[in-house]
Amino acid sequence: MRKLLFLLFLLPGISIAQDHESNIRKIYDAELSAGHTYNNLRYLCKEIGNRLAGSPGAAAAVEWTRQLMESYGFDTVYLQPVMVPHWVRGGKDIVRITNSEKHGSVELSALALGNTQGTGPSGLVGEVVEVKSIPELKELGEKVRGKIVFFNGPMDPTKVDAFEAYGGANAQRSIGAAEASKLGAIGSIVRSLSNTINDIPHTGSQRYNPDFPKIPALAISTQDAELLSTLLSEQPDLRIYLESHGEMKADKLSYNVVGEIRGSEKPEEIIAVGGHLDSWDVGEGAHDDGAGCMQGIEVLRLYKEFGWKPKRTIRAVMWMNEENGLRGGQEYAKIAKEKGEKHIAAIESDSGGFLPIGFSSTGTEEQRAKLMSWTPLFKPYQVWNLEKAGGGADIGPLRDQGPLLIGLEPDSQKYFLYHHTEADVFEAVDQRELELGAAAMTALVYLLEQEGI
Amino acid sequence: MRKLLFLLFLLPGISIAQDHESNIRKIYDAELSAGHTYNNLRYLCKEIGNRLAGSPGAAAAVEWTRQLMESYGFDTVYLQPVMVPHWVRGGKDIVRITNSEKHGSVELSALALGNTQGTGPSGLVGEVVEVKSIPELKELGEKVRGKIVFFNGPMDPTKVDAFEAYGGANAQRSIGAAEASKLGAIGSIVRSLSNTINDIPHTGSQRYNPDFPKIPALAISTQDAELLSTLLSEQPDLRIYLESHGEMKADKLSYNVVGEIRGSEKPEEIIAVGGHLDSWDVGEGAHDDGAGCMQGIEVLRLYKEFGWKPKRTIRAVMWMNEENGLRGGQEYAKIAKEKGEKHIAAIESDSGGFLPIGFSSTGTEEQRAKLMSWTPLFKPYQVWNLEKAGGGADIGPLRDQGPLLIGLEPDSQKYFLYHHTEADVFEAVDQRELELGAAAMTALVYLLEQEGI
Repeated sequence: MRKLLFLLFLLPGISIAQDHESNIRKIYDAELSAGHTYNNLRYLCKEIGNRLAGSPGAAAAVEWTRQLMESYGFDTVYLQPVMVPHWVRGGKDIVRITNSEKHGSVELSALALGNTQGTGPSGLVGEVVEVKSIPELKELGEKVRGKIVFFNGPMDPTKVDAFEAYGGANAQRSIGAAEASKLGAIGSIVRSLSNTINDIPHTGSQRYNPDFPKIPALAISTQDAELLSTLLSEQPDLRIYLESHGEMKADKLSYNVVGEIRGSEKPEEIIAVGGHLDSWDVGEGAHDDGAGCMQGIEVLRLYKEFGWKPKRTIRAVMWMNEENGLRGGQEYAKIAKEKGEKHIAAIESDSGGFLPIGFSSTGTEEQRAKLMSWTPLFKPYQVWNLEKAGGGADIGPLRDQGPLLIGLEPDSQKYFLYHHTEADVFEAVDQRELELGAAAMTALVYLLEQEGI
Repeated sequence: MRKLLFLLFLLPGISIAQDHESNIRKIYDAELSAGHTYNNLRYLCKEIGNRLAGSPGAAAAVEWTRQLMESYGFDTVYLQPVMVPHWVRGGKDIVRITNSEKHGSVELSALALGNTQGTGPSGLVGEVVEVKSIPELKELGEKVRGKIVFFNGPMDPTKVDAFEAYGGANAQRSIGAAEASKLGAIGSIVRSLSNTINDIPHTGSQRYNPDFPKIPALAISTQDAELLSTLLSEQPDLRIYLESHGEMKADKLSYNVVGEIRGSEKPEEIIAVGGHLDSWDVGEGAHDDGAGCMQGIEVLRLYKEFGWKPKRTIRAVMWMNEENGLRGGQEYAKIAKEKGEKHIAAIESDSGGFLPIGFSSTGTEEQRAKLMSWTPLFKPYQVWNLEKAGGGADIGPLRDQGPLLIGLEPDSQKYFLYHHTEADVFEAVDQRELELGAAAMTALVYLLEQEGI
């Protein structure tokens, strides 16, 4: 590695000041010894809990994070109003095999997908057609008319980056029901997006096609997806009862929450850092994405603890409604544009509070090269990969305004044990891993505000 | 990174054959899709459980791993007899504050250290003197005579590598009681070696000085260490009752378990890979070190699954008695020397079944340079650091025979949540992380048997 380090120092236009190393050490030491991230996350998870956009939990999270940032004495703390979709689950979700020759009636672990229209209390019954993907559905064509489509494409276990496996399988969840409806299906079941076989169903966003009926769509656990598939292979006339109660209500007023420390030399250049404050309506939204929010706040809190004045303006942002609308991210970018703000970088942590191993980015070649030139400063902290392309959902809408978009990249092995489930609770987060993420983000914000990008 | 890759190809004497890349991909694909490591670990943990050297559990583990390797059809499977120390805990360990003005009698979460002599059923009572380290104990000198010494040095939370923090704190556990005894102390309590504050006591090895009395030595949980320290600062005449029942019995016959696939081109060159089969007598020895044993067996199993014939001899070794004697590692090296065997490399996985991020090594500069030249082959699998110095306890005795000693290096953040505790159970191991470690070890063994070192 020494060779690479040497090369980087030779690149024109890049200087790494000597004191950066010691300031980054100071950040890590403070965070690992007496950081606030973990205890703040505990409060968000245990005292507020889940917080789907438009819910009372989301309102509580908005008010609490505003008060928390005020208590830390940031220069400005404010709310950005934004209208958000308001989906409610409405009742218990049921997926039941009704006529198994082997087992009779079999209850499967189920959770309606977000934004879906429920069956209502009378439910619906139908025969089941299993497919592994949307292309496979399309090949079946008219054969699914009047049936319930069962999407059973597993996440590819051979992908070391679990998000790649997720990317390869999530179309069946996000648009599977819409595609099935086009072909006349009456309902849809999807295998939970998890790389582990267990009994926990995973919800997540589903988008209807407005030109076709809004059929119910529910996820079942991977274990039950395996069971259903086995039973179907033995008994193709299996029938399923579906019941769900989801309803999309009128949009509600909610908020992005913003805290800011003004830059001392170039206050007009802004670096945004944070995560999304909303979560799904199950579990506590600990990894997704309480972790990212608490890490974003911690970045600014450490500046206050050290008495550091950033050269450029740094801003902690809790975006609202990433899960089922992205309205907060869109509104944040719209306001920035209207105000003529100049974001030079935006960092989102929305891949869980796990061990940070790198930063992904989207921007110009020059921006990305400058980011990568900082790799040697992060390696002592096991953050080694600054080459990956990526970013974050909430910061995406800022793209045409020119900032470098950056995602914190934690190791992904365990993310899909928790994602969008009742298991995504505070206890699933490791204190040191969460703190290492907060420290890595603070170190990066520090380099960005010092050096620009 | 591309630049580095390019440089490495230019280094003289190093060639990375094109097909190595695809064979390593094959190893990872097989392991992540249908590896046996996780289910084998389940059996070892759940059906056999903990297995301190000399215990019935250790005997069962020897027999089961022998049968398991035979069932996989390795060329040879055999046992290496070795006499091991036989320590028994003997009963419930008690550390109790007897005279707290605030709380009266307070029971602390305690576990006697391994190899210690117990108090017996009558226990002992004494005043407590707190120190943070052995140097601090030595400064106190005669002041500890007739007292119980309380070692309360925390692991340094700012060390990103938790093993470094462990290294900085473990003298108080391994020789604290011996040093206290030299000064006339009657007993010793040590803060558990953990970087987390919780209620779980951690046992571990303790070495007496044969010239001084064998005083009892017990660990208490970090939480209770904090409590005891606080109470002591308010009430220095606090008294503690200690009770433990440990006893070192006569040495017992046990075994290293070895499975081998003979090399097709250079069978005399041996690559050993594995972990230690014994564990402490609490929990299930899942991370420490069932994981390493099952990963070692998996390396050879994958060769059988693929029908691969290694050029050099590869050997899975389960060493016995790492925890409280290292007799197995010593015996293995002694036998290798007597037989004139030539180990070119020995790999130990004994840092938990967590996400593998690198390999550490000890050997000549040339050996280490060749190992590091393989970094680009591991980076796609997030194994990025092949530079660290290190190895493993059981393979250490081989050092003077010239092999490159290699340790699998998983991320260390969570290791000291489980190490030497009742919490080190199968459920604490993540399937994908364990499998990634097995795949990394197999890939490395593959490169070693193909290319030599």
